[in-house]
Amino acid sequence: MRTVNVELGARSYAIHIGEGLLSNADLLLAALPQRKAAIVADANVAPLYLDALTATLSGAGVNALPVVLPAGEEHKDWQTLNRVFDALLAARAERGTALIALGGGVVGDITGFAAATYMRGVPYIQLPTTLLSQVDSSVGGKTAINHPLGKNMIGAFYQPRLVLADTGTLGTLPARELSAGLAEVIKYGLIRDIEFFDWLERNIDKLVARDPAALAYAIERSCRNKAEVVAVDEHETGERALLNFGHTFGHAIETGTGFGTWLHGEAVAMGMVLASELSHRIGLIGAGDVERVRAILVRARLPVAAPDLGVARYRELMGHDKKVRDGALRFVLLRKLGEAFVSADAAREALDAVLAAAGAHA
Amino acid sequence: MRTVNVELGARSYAIHIGEGLLSNADLLLAALPQRKAAIVADANVAPLYLDALTATLSGAGVNALPVVLPAGEEHKDWQTLNRVFDALLAARAERGTALIALGGGVVGDITGFAAATYMRGVPYIQLPTTLLSQVDSSVGGKTAINHPLGKNMIGAFYQPRLVLADTGTLGTLPARELSAGLAEVIKYGLIRDIEFFDWLERNIDKLVARDPAALAYAIERSCRNKAEVVAVDEHETGERALLNFGHTFGHAIETGTGFGTWLHGEAVAMGMVLASELSHRIGLIGAGDVERVRAILVRARLPVAAPDLGVARYRELMGHDKKVRDGALRFVLLRKLGEAFVSADAAREALDAVLAAAGAHA
Repeated sequence: MRTVNVELGARSYAIHIGEGLLSNADLLLAALPQRKAAIVADANVAPLYLDALTATLSGAGVNALPVVLPAGEEHKDWQTLNRVFDALLAARAERGTALIALGGGVVGDITGFAAATYMRGVPYIQLPTTLLSQVDSSVGGKTAINHPLGKNMIGAFYQPRLVLADTGTLGTLPARELSAGLAEVIKYGLIRDIEFFDWLERNIDKLVARDPAALAYAIERSCRNKAEVVAVDEHETGERALLNFGHTFGHAIETGTGFGTWLHGEAVAMGMVLASELSHRIGLIGAGDVERVRAILVRARLPVAAPDLGVARYRELMGHDKKVRDGALRFVLLRKLGEAFVSADAAREALDAVLAAAGAHA
Repeated sequence: MRTVNVELGARSYAIHIGEGLLSNADLLLAALPQRKAAIVADANVAPLYLDALTATLSGAGVNALPVVLPAGEEHKDWQTLNRVFDALLAARAERGTALIALGGGVVGDITGFAAATYMRGVPYIQLPTTLLSQVDSSVGGKTAINHPLGKNMIGAFYQPRLVLADTGTLGTLPARELSAGLAEVIKYGLIRDIEFFDWLERNIDKLVARDPAALAYAIERSCRNKAEVVAVDEHETGERALLNFGHTFGHAIETGTGFGTWLHGEAVAMGMVLASELSHRIGLIGAGDVERVRAILVRARLPVAAPDLGVARYRELMGHDKKVRDGALRFVLLRKLGEAFVSADAAREALDAVLAAAGAHA
């Protein structure tokens, strides 16, 4: 078992990474304030792990209420969130009743937001079962639901008590979702860890082939990168925004094509290509660097051709980005591979050129 | 102008109390991070103060987006909250765009919760225009909306940047709402400030008659009591629960009769009578003490006869209380007038007797 600690004072917590952690009752018990909990899973993940987890908890004397939600990013909304509240209230869940998020990023985000707001806050635990949620969304306390006008627009910063990343769940993960997770893994290399990026260039085929040792290493190193950033900037007033590399374009793609059409990781991969091209166009990185970004994403079986939404629509969608300040778009760009920064003044012409060249015709 | 500070480290803020504060642009400007803000008001309050406030801000160079909501506790729900989000997103409100809650407790609670969750948190300012919101709900960062199964079940602890209580707004407040506010004022005396309770017994008629000096003093002293409690227990893990005196019964009455039928303050007044009777029945306070509680509430023109929901229904409604722990109801009771505590073991028979005697027949 590998462990990464997220250092946030009284709200610090551990991320444990390893095979079979879903059946480790001791780790779960230590994070539960009472012998009552609610497990939230979606309709895809519930048939795989819900019964076993319920049995594990039950064997440890914990009564776990199952809450099964419809699967998919398109359900990350008020209606689905309210189903969690309805179930909690019907079962008389209390302030000490922890919520356990079992599944991918969508379930983790909804469950975390439900925990942040049910009775003004109850404890929660993340049990991520996808690569993307293990390396990104389960760590750092960003919770949210989508709004028709923008992704993750409604949410809270609210930290879990514990994250258990059971690498055993990756064996059955659809290939498309594995690739989507690799997008966020590659992101850490690009924004702040060139050594890791170099390692990824050498090992991306192993990761795609689900080599257990390579995956465990990549998850740990990704979580370590994220934990370091979150520890210094929990509420995204500065450095944490770098984790949004590729996300301004990516969210526009997700919203513009309809939630669920592109997987989040796929949209981020595409967004990283566009952000790299923008970085190149304004003279920060070379064409060879952009090619390296594109090449590793292709090897990770991720899309590198943008959907044709039109330049105007891209601009409109990006205008809802949470990084907008005083009306101006702010992009995470690359100064070089392994070093990102937030730019306040990406030239409009360069951006339009990138969007037009990407196939986003006006 | 009177000022009470809420001491919460980096999240400390001031409550200013005085006549005409709504037109004090300097105080508002100092709390706004950018020259763009949104004013949230309900359909009752908007016609009274929205134009003047917008003009005040506009004169100071601040562009203020008006968001007008339907009035009433029955609208403190998802649908109304979503109207705020819709308006903010349509106007491209940013992370630096502050929300200004102009109105009573319902608008303050919804706006605060919107601020807590829009883009995972934006600044907000409370401009309470009712006595109840000036002495209670605008202070301390409790934000929430209702759920059909319980009041304030969905929310967040999220502190405002500033509270301006303009006592000039109390002149036009309907008498019923003034009385509702007095319920929370009297509460502070009962739970932790017997000197204030004594003062209230001498001055309640002046307060009902809206004597400006008496009102300003009562508001300041109430806010000071609340600020002291919040400073030591922001997230209600201990002492803050005492502020819920009368609220377990009160919330049951509000939910059981349909949100909006009883004003929150009226339900709290009734709840304080029942909590006092329960305290008496288990031998904590004398019959004379209960009589003092009842008498001052009657003089404040508050209801002291409970709605007949039936004992079973009362119990069911109270089972959703946020203070429930391990399935057991916990009541705020009086050890004596001016000293409350949280009881973990109010005897079931005593509770049933209180409910039955109050007219809540099974």
